[in-house]
Amino acid sequence: MNYTLNNLPERDAKPRDKGYTMAMDKGLSIREVEDLLEVAGEYIDIVKLGWSTSYVVPNLKGKLDAYRSAGIPVYFGGTLFEAFIVRDQFDDYRRVLDKYEMTFAEVSDGSIELDHDQKCEYIQKLAEQVTVLSEVGSKDAEKIIPPYKWIKLMQEELDAGAWKVIGEAREGGNVGLFRSTGEVRSGLVEEILTKIPFEKIIWEAPQKEQQVWFIKLLGANVNLGNIAPSEVIPLETIRLGLRGDTFTHFLNMEKPC
Amino acid sequence: MNYTLNNLPERDAKPRDKGYTMAMDKGLSIREVEDLLEVAGEYIDIVKLGWSTSYVVPNLKGKLDAYRSAGIPVYFGGTLFEAFIVRDQFDDYRRVLDKYEMTFAEVSDGSIELDHDQKCEYIQKLAEQVTVLSEVGSKDAEKIIPPYKWIKLMQEELDAGAWKVIGEAREGGNVGLFRSTGEVRSGLVEEILTKIPFEKIIWEAPQKEQQVWFIKLLGANVNLGNIAPSEVIPLETIRLGLRGDTFTHFLNMEKPC
Amino acid sequence: MNYTLNNLPERDAKPRDKGYTMAMDKGLSIREVEDLLEVAGEYIDIVKLGWSTSYVVPNLKGKLDAYRSAGIPVYFGGTLFEAFIVRDQFDDYRRVLDKYEMTFAEVSDGSIELDHDQKCEYIQKLAEQVTVLSEVGSKDAEKIIPPYKWIKLMQEELDAGAWKVIGEAREGGNVGLFRSTGEVRSGLVEEILTKIPFEKIIWEAPQKEQQVWFIKLLGANVNLGNIAPSEVIPLETIRLGLRGDTFTHFLNMEKPC
Repeated sequence: MNYTLNNLPERDAKPRDKGYTMAMDKGLSIREVEDLLEVAGEYIDIVKLGWSTSYVVPNLKGKLDAYRSAGIPVYFGGTLFEAFIVRDQFDDYRRVLDKYEMTFAEVSDGSIELDHDQKCEYIQKLAEQVTVLSEVGSKDAEKIIPPYKWIKLMQEELDAGAWKVIGEAREGGNVGLFRSTGEVRSGLVEEILTKIPFEKIIWEAPQKEQQVWFIKLLGANVNLGNIAPSEVIPLETIRLGLRGDTFTHFLNMEKPC
Repeated sequence: MNYTLNNLPERDAKPRDKGYTMAMDKGLSIREVEDLLEVAGEYIDIVKLGWSTSYVVPNLKGKLDAYRSAGIPVYFGGTLFEAFIVRDQFDDYRRVLDKYEMTFAEVSDGSIELDHDQKCEYIQKLAEQVTVLSEVGSKDAEKIIPPYKWIKLMQEELDAGAWKVIGEAREGGNVGLFRSTGEVRSGLVEEILTKIPFEKIIWEAPQKEQQVWFIKLLGANVNLGNIAPSEVIPLETIRLGLRGDTFTHFLNMEKPC
Repeated sequence: MNYTLNNLPERDAKPRDKGYTMAMDKGLSIREVEDLLEVAGEYIDIVKLGWSTSYVVPNLKGKLDAYRSAGIPVYFGGTLFEAFIVRDQFDDYRRVLDKYEMTFAEVSDGSIELDHDQKCEYIQKLAEQVTVLSEVGSKDAEKIIPPYKWIKLMQEELDAGAWKVIGEAREGGNVGLFRSTGEVRSGLVEEILTKIPFEKIIWEAPQKEQQVWFIKLLGANVNLGNIAPSEVIPLETIRLGLRGDTFTHFLNMEKPC
């Protein structure tokens, strides 16, 4: 860090096994990737190429190279997996992962109906090839999954070989874990945490208020995802109690003030 | 594209006569223009320098050169036309278009009162010099134009020589075609489409939900405008049914799933 | 400017003593700083490195150099001052200012409780070392300060040596001067202006509607702060009556139309 401040919350450094920041790239140029790495490379653990943007961007190969040379793994958004599955092109998907030498992949069912046993089979198969993140939660605001079922789905997906499970929120932060207003479904999150270890979950939390809520509940080293490139630095300050939103929270925890 | 997905909606390639994406540049640097072209040059048909930003940006000439060298035409936002008209400087405006070798121009009356015959005269005169886009709709949320009048205005402006007509929404997407909440005035749009061919209209639709609405109504190849540079790639995936929002819509159209 | 428009409002040029635009950098790369300077260097008077982002960004030195070589002063957000104060590290803070050769600093109490005499003492001490901006207003939406007290606080801070006082709004524009909806507390602003000269105040106004409100009240040369880098050019057009929002306002003032 650039200078010394006493009594900051402990923040794990990279490589770490919790406190992940997953950034979302929805169409950056190579230069913008380089800029992101200059500024936030130390704070980003993994990058998602949002949904199926990897299909249309003309700079895919160069972009993957740029992230790799910084030691940051990249994966395609789950919607791309679903786009292949719904077209009965699973083998093609595996070949795409090979072609681009992907080491991570996401399995999700946010936009398609997928029998859960089948979803777990996909996780199992892909886990032979790459590290799998699996996502729970629908992109459809109407589909409310009760807490006990979130837990069951998450546990089964971890058992099937998922490295971590992701709580769905979309780029907007208004479905899945959140109400349409962006407010956290706090009872849901707390119930999930009674059964699933918090370091196994990446919470999609694109809005600042959502990030603040999770950090207050779970501390500086909570795994957070769908972070916009320009919000990685702001998020890091929130983790450290150095932005107004968590300033007092961490002070009160560390020492009386 | 980077890999093959079956049964995608048909999307016209550039140069095309429908399915336009009009991106809005409200003050990009030359390098940001280059980045945009790297990422989205194949998807952008035309660029608008938002409202009168061309008056204050110090890099106007270089910016125009950058877009031109990528074969993408550029025009000044309609508010600039209005700023000249309201000051009785129409001839000066024509000289500005010449000075910067503009090949397109917008005629609008979103911020001024302009007799419609006079507006059509301006369209006619400018059409001798450049390709004219004309815009219908007020920037004033209080001024509600009834559907029959939108149709009359659009038709007369096309008759006067406008190449395409633009449905007003502003950068925010909260006036003209839309309610102050951003919701589409759907009855208005549907009535317009009974009389004006859909390929003659560019719908300003800066918000994702607005883009989704038009794509569901009119398909992958609807003309959309006021797209923020960072949203051109996301828009392209929505056109192709590769983002959650239109994922199921196009599947159901193409084949049973 | 790129061409001539008659009857624009008078806008002071840099260096100026009012009509300041304070831009907020919350984690730009060096290249993004260069891009900002290319586009908006002529319009930005001073840059704030938002809250404590200067603690975590790895490019702090290079960034400061880039702004300095363009002649634009930079200061650390007030939350950083507060982070040092609450840890009883004021002397460390002064050393940090020296280490980075800062010529400006902000004193605030948006996140901490600070006796006002003590705040004024900090202003006085820092004013021996740098030019001080002091900020009035809490980041806590619950803490409503009545107008007479805003005036008293501002006057005492100016008397203590603050160069200008800042009206708090945060990056979001939803506290302090504004209601949680972003609406201006207009009675508050008007009462402040009966006592404090308008050129001594920088109004944080990150949202467009807030900028428009202040410009309509106080003219093209009002001091505005917390402007996002991409909004500096749009703001300049609003100051000049060249965007829809203030288009008619300035015309009506300049001459009948």
